[in-house]
Amino acid sequence: MTEEALFPDIRIVLVESTHAGNIGAAARAMKNMGITRLYLVQPRDFPDEKAVWRAAGAADVVEAACVVDSLDDAITGCQLVIGTSARDRRIPWPMLDPGECGIKINEALGGKGDIAILFGRESRGLRNEELQKCHYHVNIPTAKAYSSLNLAMAVQVITWEILRASLEGRPRPQAWDVDYARAEAVEHFFEHLERTLIQIDFHDPENPRQLMTRLRRLFNRVRMDEMEVNILRGFLTAINKLGR
Amino acid sequence: MTEEALFPDIRIVLVESTHAGNIGAAARAMKNMGITRLYLVQPRDFPDEKAVWRAAGAADVVEAACVVDSLDDAITGCQLVIGTSARDRRIPWPMLDPGECGIKINEALGGKGDIAILFGRESRGLRNEELQKCHYHVNIPTAKAYSSLNLAMAVQVITWEILRASLEGRPRPQAWDVDYARAEAVEHFFEHLERTLIQIDFHDPENPRQLMTRLRRLFNRVRMDEMEVNILRGFLTAINKLGR
Repeated sequence: MTEEALFPDIRIVLVESTHAGNIGAAARAMKNMGITRLYLVQPRDFPDEKAVWRAAGAADVVEAACVVDSLDDAITGCQLVIGTSARDRRIPWPMLDPGECGIKINEALGGKGDIAILFGRESRGLRNEELQKCHYHVNIPTAKAYSSLNLAMAVQVITWEILRASLEGRPRPQAWDVDYARAEAVEHFFEHLERTLIQIDFHDPENPRQLMTRLRRLFNRVRMDEMEVNILRGFLTAINKLGR
Repeated sequence: MTEEALFPDIRIVLVESTHAGNIGAAARAMKNMGITRLYLVQPRDFPDEKAVWRAAGAADVVEAACVVDSLDDAITGCQLVIGTSARDRRIPWPMLDPGECGIKINEALGGKGDIAILFGRESRGLRNEELQKCHYHVNIPTAKAYSSLNLAMAVQVITWEILRASLEGRPRPQAWDVDYARAEAVEHFFEHLERTLIQIDFHDPENPRQLMTRLRRLFNRVRMDEMEVNILRGFLTAINKLGR
């Protein structure tokens, strides 16, 4: 990580990217906009000299990239997770446009924990279960005639909007009394919730009817703080004891 | 040119670009944002299959690109010319940030004549004499630690801002009674002006002291209409006759 990063709390997470050249181009786009922390979830073609070559002056970002096995590893420690999404989803998630995304991220910079922005595969984007780990989705509008943005270009637009929002000097930090919950704590809550729902026969994993999707959307949308997660975990534990 | 272009009046002009891959990536970025008219001024490395490959679904934009010998050829017929510029210039020009640039272009879309956005060489950008043909310069802010944007990424940011401004639905068309002068008419005016200044011994080409630069900035800044150019040309012609 270079010391000059304007946004040391922000992680750019590329999930199963296929082309090393895109990794390099994304690294350059990030560093141009003051972001240097790159996470690669199971990259297909990395390390590769094409990534370093395309990164140009951002080779240090490529070399310092964290390669991880799972998306959960990439978002551990994050207070805010935003996923890029091109398609309309069956169950709509809270959506941001790129400008709103830049503002939202700048608002969150004051808080404890990192901020992750997820970019999916060149071919198919992020999977539903990956998008369901996000507080928000962000969509980059395009012309209808050709809507498929190159991966690194999407990184450029989103990171530009982050820098842009910071330059416009309206960070409007949100006042909150408790730190926001980290991604891993929220994930543990969802696992606990699902176990509990199964235990009480409310939820049948063989016939899920989007129950967990809707619950994930609900609890991610409110962006829980640590205390709220602890309260809900306590509630679930109380239910678990009843069932015995 | 594809028929689905949202912005048929806009030309993206790449001046002496070195890498064919950048041409293709720029074409894709353009088409994603609804712009399909690509002008290439003396490209180094074109045609080349790398351009087509990187263009992906925008190969038609690459194949329809106009390859021209001079910047003047690329901006003939343009009512508004905007040049991208990374560096501070000795004589500052009216500057736009990318957001302002997107709005300015959308405002101009109602008028007669095309709109050109100029992008310079990968290595050195646009030359001073090229920038002096512009009404405005646009600069993409970056992190100080690494300010060198890839050419196609710059195209992506600017074209995104054009689409963004159009989506925000505030085109605010400017009312004007006479059409704006085309680039070639303005260039002829400048040539006429310089000849006249030399004729009356006001201007010494051997010792120019930035005179023409300052005059270009002045007259480009006001974005003359056709009648104004005609009036000034008449004025110069009257001076020419005096000198005989």
